[in-house]
Amino acid sequence: MSVPKYPGVAYSVTVRAEYPNKIGMLATITSAVGEVGGDMGGIDIVSSSRGLMVRDITVNARDIQHGQEIVKRIKRIPGIRVASVSDPTFLLHLGGKIEMRSKVPVRTRNDLSMAYTPGVARVSMAIHDDPKAAWNLTAKGNTVAVVSDGTAVLGLGDIGPEGAMPVMEGKALLFKELAGVDSWPLCLNTKDPDQIVEIVKAVSTGFGGVNLEDISAPRCFYIEERLKKEMDIPVFHDDQHGTAVVVLAALTNALRIVKKQLADSKIVITGAGASAIASTKLLLVAGAKNIIMFDRSGPLHRERDYGDNVYKRWVADNTNPSDFSGPLHDAFVDVDIFIGLSGPGVVTADDVRQMKRDGIVFALANPDPEVWPEEALQHVQIVATGRSDYPNQVNNALCFPGLFRGVLDVRAREINDEMKLAAAGAIASIVRPSELGPEYLIPSVFNKAVVPAVSRAVAEAAHKTGVAQRSRKRLGAYGQHGR
Amino acid sequence: MSVPKYPGVAYSVTVRAEYPNKIGMLATITSAVGEVGGDMGGIDIVSSSRGLMVRDITVNARDIQHGQEIVKRIKRIPGIRVASVSDPTFLLHLGGKIEMRSKVPVRTRNDLSMAYTPGVARVSMAIHDDPKAAWNLTAKGNTVAVVSDGTAVLGLGDIGPEGAMPVMEGKALLFKELAGVDSWPLCLNTKDPDQIVEIVKAVSTGFGGVNLEDISAPRCFYIEERLKKEMDIPVFHDDQHGTAVVVLAALTNALRIVKKQLADSKIVITGAGASAIASTKLLLVAGAKNIIMFDRSGPLHRERDYGDNVYKRWVADNTNPSDFSGPLHDAFVDVDIFIGLSGPGVVTADDVRQMKRDGIVFALANPDPEVWPEEALQHVQIVATGRSDYPNQVNNALCFPGLFRGVLDVRAREINDEMKLAAAGAIASIVRPSELGPEYLIPSVFNKAVVPAVSRAVAEAAHKTGVAQRSRKRLGAYGQHGR
Repeated sequence: MSVPKYPGVAYSVTVRAEYPNKIGMLATITSAVGEVGGDMGGIDIVSSSRGLMVRDITVNARDIQHGQEIVKRIKRIPGIRVASVSDPTFLLHLGGKIEMRSKVPVRTRNDLSMAYTPGVARVSMAIHDDPKAAWNLTAKGNTVAVVSDGTAVLGLGDIGPEGAMPVMEGKALLFKELAGVDSWPLCLNTKDPDQIVEIVKAVSTGFGGVNLEDISAPRCFYIEERLKKEMDIPVFHDDQHGTAVVVLAALTNALRIVKKQLADSKIVITGAGASAIASTKLLLVAGAKNIIMFDRSGPLHRERDYGDNVYKRWVADNTNPSDFSGPLHDAFVDVDIFIGLSGPGVVTADDVRQMKRDGIVFALANPDPEVWPEEALQHVQIVATGRSDYPNQVNNALCFPGLFRGVLDVRAREINDEMKLAAAGAIASIVRPSELGPEYLIPSVFNKAVVPAVSRAVAEAAHKTGVAQRSRKRLGAYGQHGR
Repeated sequence: MSVPKYPGVAYSVTVRAEYPNKIGMLATITSAVGEVGGDMGGIDIVSSSRGLMVRDITVNARDIQHGQEIVKRIKRIPGIRVASVSDPTFLLHLGGKIEMRSKVPVRTRNDLSMAYTPGVARVSMAIHDDPKAAWNLTAKGNTVAVVSDGTAVLGLGDIGPEGAMPVMEGKALLFKELAGVDSWPLCLNTKDPDQIVEIVKAVSTGFGGVNLEDISAPRCFYIEERLKKEMDIPVFHDDQHGTAVVVLAALTNALRIVKKQLADSKIVITGAGASAIASTKLLLVAGAKNIIMFDRSGPLHRERDYGDNVYKRWVADNTNPSDFSGPLHDAFVDVDIFIGLSGPGVVTADDVRQMKRDGIVFALANPDPEVWPEEALQHVQIVATGRSDYPNQVNNALCFPGLFRGVLDVRAREINDEMKLAAAGAIASIVRPSELGPEYLIPSVFNKAVVPAVSRAVAEAAHKTGVAQRSRKRLGAYGQHGR
């Protein structure tokens, strides 16, 4: 099936066009743009003098090629001179997307003598006497390190730590804008898991938590496990657990619609990377009993050899109760839930057709799903993807901002399964029973109810499981985090 | 000599006092405060009802003990109940002094699709194709890592990385408020020099420069040397070079006043730590020919054994041309310049008395100088200290903000001697010949001319020495760094 692409701002181009100031020229431009499928984004006048009009014309395109096609078409309009072409997305990134700001004034010598020497010496000594005081007297208590080595960035693969930086800055934006959590990206110029562990441990002094990001499997499992064991601040690999939480949230609501239970459902998962393994584990914790995971070589079962990949071995030992070893197409027979965390086109409409009545399809490969919703919807009622241009976007940003808000609010020592289950439940609960439907499983990331609900649920779960280090009475001030 | 302390905000206390709303009570309080030498800082009404007045009374004190004395005295006033005592310096530090901020809006899905997925993928790939693009398309180009291991924090010694954090946040404030430079503190939970080098190299991806801070000697020399050799971004150990630059700046103007030349001056330096060795090196580069450095064991000369301290060995080989080996008192005979970078009380008035006509005394130990200005001024005309309550404060904050502004503006690969000399010259030049005098050697850190002058001079020196990586024509936009 061909990919249904719509023009969007992410691929927009801005063309600076000069042309004689005559009636009808603008209409000529807009119709030329429409002719090649461009979507007019904005028209600004740069200057208009002596019969010459200069305009910045911004056009949304479907992809990079389409943007170039649009520019070419505009250049062909008689009487038009294209002075320059710019890219709004790149312009927005110029100079970076984040900055550090002072929270206290430094305008006078008195300001300086409190925020810096000599006053700061007393604060430093108070922390020296009781290192826990750093949580209150420095930025630590509200700050998360966003750590990546650039080995598995978005769907782009190993593009290096420099390439990872714009993504980590984006992550930092979401932390701050959605949940008031401060963070700073640390993109590490090393791929050695042991060195990454040592680095994160050494820098952890100044952070209240660590968000690992875009680190390839199975290295990410090892790194996270060691950090959890060896650090006294919580660690969260978002690609694993963020995805798992939001998958569980969406699935909880999907099962409500079709009136099925997770424990009774037969589940097929494609993919055996970070997100697939973490989602499998969380689904098992949530009560799932019949999961079959497929990697490129077929289903994971006890008889296969996994080399030194102890993580796949674990999955084989703890899923696939009947040790199914056939092809994917056969596995789809009578399946209740399909979760794709693999790659584009892995599943066909013919596979989906074999699913049980009221099947649920989560085709989460990004940007192109395992099966396109238009195809899957011929056979099932509920489809979710990772895309923002279809209903039911499974988006990690529903989880990590509120989760870390809750974690920092109660100074949780760790992020355990109960806290993840609580986060999933909170996300699911935002959609009221009256609103719930096949096209509305989970809320938008811009729904303002998400972060308070998730943070409160996570904080309560931290207390219940004894990992909160701050007294319960401090709770209740959500949203008052210094913004 | 007794330490002349004045009450200041750095040691202020705020007392919440409740008392009957009668005429004369406030006068009683202020006179009680004055009686014990407190300096009224501010009086705020908290509430006034049913004959009961509640006020927050802030009093500046000389030190911690004096603050406690003031509180005790207020408690003794008949009719007064002290409800609480708080410390404005600690209140200012609550929650930390810095935060991360978004520079782009994230309010709509369109915002998100440019700043985050899917738009960010194109930016990431552009950087992957040309890693140098990270300088333009991420925060790297304006961001400095402030790195410490907490082994030599202010005058407090090895108080650990947690204790160092408020100081590093203060440093970050100064970077931003004075020069628009973004930074984030990294306080490392390790003292192993090789590990520190590996960590800084690994995190350097996201930073345009590294400011090392409060790392003990001689480890700091080794760490800086290796980083300079092995990284492609500039490194600056502020305790060394920041001090050296400002010492040279102040000395340049002091020599102008007494009409002496650096090359002809006999110089005694006490201290053999980071700042003393770096200052010695820069003075040699600037033309000094006769320096004698003293550590706790006496003068550094060729005949002494320095164990494996190659840094002291270097000083011994490159200073003290006559291999003077006597006591400090004798070394002071006919000295033109004394620079103390050691500890309190190391030098007596009697030592200073032996100096040559128009002697220059820089007693920079903090907070208590090698010799108090009141004593030194009996024998010399020019005295500088590290304190803000005397004229001529030698303050690193005169150097590092403007220096890094210039370094980042031209993307200097390194910070070389020529750039340090340029910075010193620029700081000295801020004081006009007509203003120059024994009590006005160097400008205040709040003088708005400092950062533009230093950054321009440093950028020009970087170009002259071929370490600038950005074309000269971009210069001229100083002060326009995103504030």
